[in-house]
Amino acid sequence: MIPSEIIKQKRNGNEISHAQIKDFINGYVNDEIPEYQMSALLMAIFFNGMTDTEISALVDVMLNSGKRMDFTHSANYVADKHSTGGVGDKVSIILGPLLAAAGIAIPMLSGRSLGHTGGTLDKLETIPGFKVDINLDEFRKQVDSIGIAMIGQTKEICPADRRMYALRDVTGTVESIPLISGSIMSKKIAEGISGLVLDVKTGNGAFMKNINEAHKLGESLAKIGKSFNINTDVVYTSMNQPLGKFAGLWCEVQESIDGLKGNGPDDTMQVTFELGAKLILQAGLVKTQLEAIALQKELITNGQAYQKFVEMVEYQGGNSKDIANYKKLHQPKFSKKLIAEKSGYIQSMDTYKIGLATVELGCGRKKTSDIVDSTAGIKFNYKIGDKVTDGDTVFRLFNSDKIKLESAYNVLKNCFIIGERKIEHQLILS
Amino acid sequence: MIPSEIIKQKRNGNEISHAQIKDFINGYVNDEIPEYQMSALLMAIFFNGMTDTEISALVDVMLNSGKRMDFTHSANYVADKHSTGGVGDKVSIILGPLLAAAGIAIPMLSGRSLGHTGGTLDKLETIPGFKVDINLDEFRKQVDSIGIAMIGQTKEICPADRRMYALRDVTGTVESIPLISGSIMSKKIAEGISGLVLDVKTGNGAFMKNINEAHKLGESLAKIGKSFNINTDVVYTSMNQPLGKFAGLWCEVQESIDGLKGNGPDDTMQVTFELGAKLILQAGLVKTQLEAIALQKELITNGQAYQKFVEMVEYQGGNSKDIANYKKLHQPKFSKKLIAEKSGYIQSMDTYKIGLATVELGCGRKKTSDIVDSTAGIKFNYKIGDKVTDGDTVFRLFNSDKIKLESAYNVLKNCFIIGERKIEHQLILS
Repeated sequence: MIPSEIIKQKRNGNEISHAQIKDFINGYVNDEIPEYQMSALLMAIFFNGMTDTEISALVDVMLNSGKRMDFTHSANYVADKHSTGGVGDKVSIILGPLLAAAGIAIPMLSGRSLGHTGGTLDKLETIPGFKVDINLDEFRKQVDSIGIAMIGQTKEICPADRRMYALRDVTGTVESIPLISGSIMSKKIAEGISGLVLDVKTGNGAFMKNINEAHKLGESLAKIGKSFNINTDVVYTSMNQPLGKFAGLWCEVQESIDGLKGNGPDDTMQVTFELGAKLILQAGLVKTQLEAIALQKELITNGQAYQKFVEMVEYQGGNSKDIANYKKLHQPKFSKKLIAEKSGYIQSMDTYKIGLATVELGCGRKKTSDIVDSTAGIKFNYKIGDKVTDGDTVFRLFNSDKIKLESAYNVLKNCFIIGERKIEHQLILS
Repeated sequence: MIPSEIIKQKRNGNEISHAQIKDFINGYVNDEIPEYQMSALLMAIFFNGMTDTEISALVDVMLNSGKRMDFTHSANYVADKHSTGGVGDKVSIILGPLLAAAGIAIPMLSGRSLGHTGGTLDKLETIPGFKVDINLDEFRKQVDSIGIAMIGQTKEICPADRRMYALRDVTGTVESIPLISGSIMSKKIAEGISGLVLDVKTGNGAFMKNINEAHKLGESLAKIGKSFNINTDVVYTSMNQPLGKFAGLWCEVQESIDGLKGNGPDDTMQVTFELGAKLILQAGLVKTQLEAIALQKELITNGQAYQKFVEMVEYQGGNSKDIANYKKLHQPKFSKKLIAEKSGYIQSMDTYKIGLATVELGCGRKKTSDIVDSTAGIKFNYKIGDKVTDGDTVFRLFNSDKIKLESAYNVLKNCFIIGERKIEHQLILS
């Protein structure tokens, strides 16, 4: 195999074979193929895309670069949920325990904050004592025992993806549908699941800016799922504004606990139930969408979803007393209001900028070594279509570092538009 | 400057600024920007091309990454010739001394064999004692003193190009008109010349396979020349068969000496005179193309061109006795004939394969550390349109390594087609 010939083949728009993809990626993981050749190939893929056959091979090779979980022994339906990333998206933290309470086993590998988007792992780690770096054996035991575990991608899972992702991040090759699909699906398939629901975020705060791009990604993901015998549903939801009333770290855990207790914000719960219904129907627990939504509401009302969350927290090193006391933990030292300077209806929100503001506040990292601030976040008092009056506090920013608060405030200014017209915001897209 | 943002900008088809190109390339040369980011940028340029403004900036930055020669003190017109590379192309070795004899100063930086194409430096180095690694000061002194020097690209000239070229070679990013143009022109402009003639080779033995591609490259080169105030002429010549009767190392020097003595093959001399006429007209030595050609023939007939060659050889460490004795030097130990198996006219020649056969023989390198064989080469007894009879020796291969001879023979089989029709071969294209 001559790596530059494989690069040229892809560059010229010709299909590369399963064997070539395998040699190239394994060579890269084993340090036989240098990063400059991998980045050239990634850029050629960015431009020329990949055929279904190539994508399947890519997933297969990345998947088999590490260990694969196996839950074939489980009596329960084993499934997972994945979101392509957004701002204020805490659905995993609510939905995971909720579905586990319904009897679906959830072996969830989550990610950290990436660019302007929040990360489930960073949010969960604000729970005192909560461990997300658990080895695969313990992970499997926990899923078998309580029906759910939420941890970080371990070194054993898809090492090829981890290295390729880091390289894509610095070589302008992130926004490629085959590469995004390969990265997501290889990790999910490695979990050993039978079912998957994907939340493809769409809009100015998502990687996919419009519904056409979102459909392309969703269809690519669904095709891969099918070819690996995984029941795969795709839901398209809006990321033209943050999800829920909070974006940040501990504040999102608080909002999730509210959701598990029946007090979650409407939009967040609507997305949660929509995604949850897909897996409940896949599992055959009920027959209709309406029943699937009713089942989820029942598990919240009767306290089982919340109890499952507490059980998971304790299993992973946290303390139920902290969860009971959740309103008082991680009090921010500073806060600042963003005031409306005229009256009218919120027309739009620049969700990308809002995401960047959460990073400035301390909820994300500009470089890997940055330490996040558990207390940091933004409260959204108004969302698209809401009426505001001159002088109202539209957003409230809070954290424990005054300099970062100011710099976040500067990013956040002018990231919403107030106008005359009452706007409708469509949350679930089709 | 964030390198990945510059990569994305180019990837998205947006122009990158002079300052961005400068930061990126200088960062690369200073090891601040890693090779994987440069290779991603190069691939993005491969796909999206570069605007005239970007190409100008590219040349300017590469040019200024090293030293620039200065011949403004010279009373003579200072010029150079460059070919995009072919098989059997020894024109530089004839034309350099010929133009120097005409009173044009020729500070020529030449290259080595690359891929299937021959390299002037490797040919010149077969002259016993001939040095091609001369520092820039001595180089300038030689040009001032005898009007010509032919050396290799020194470390001081365009270090950015040298590193980028090596990277392009292994990342599938060689065949890009802006990158080829930038590489050629930055080195030529660094020579401090006022005039340039470019021989853009076209056909199955050239990097540009058809005249449309060749025109694109030629126009790009001419535009750069103009923007750097260099009189630039472009000539398009056929590389659908090797140039001359020989391709190899010492055998090409022999054929060049024949040319300088008035006994060169027609095609080689025609290309030489065509290119030479452009520079003679640029220099204003005569008024018309016919006079320019007549002047060159005169300089050959009166022995001045040959004398200038001998003078250069002696100046650069060679010996005039070796040149006088040129028919006897570097006798190959082995040779083998390629026999016609039917009668008819040569219809076509696979010049790329012939070039690869010269590499197999030992005229080029498969890896940098390979040592070339001065005695190696191929004699072409017949060319396109010539009548051959069953049993005739079409080509004769020779070298001093029997195993390499056999492997070259195997490459060379079936690289010409004999048919019924008498074919015309057009040498100078328009």
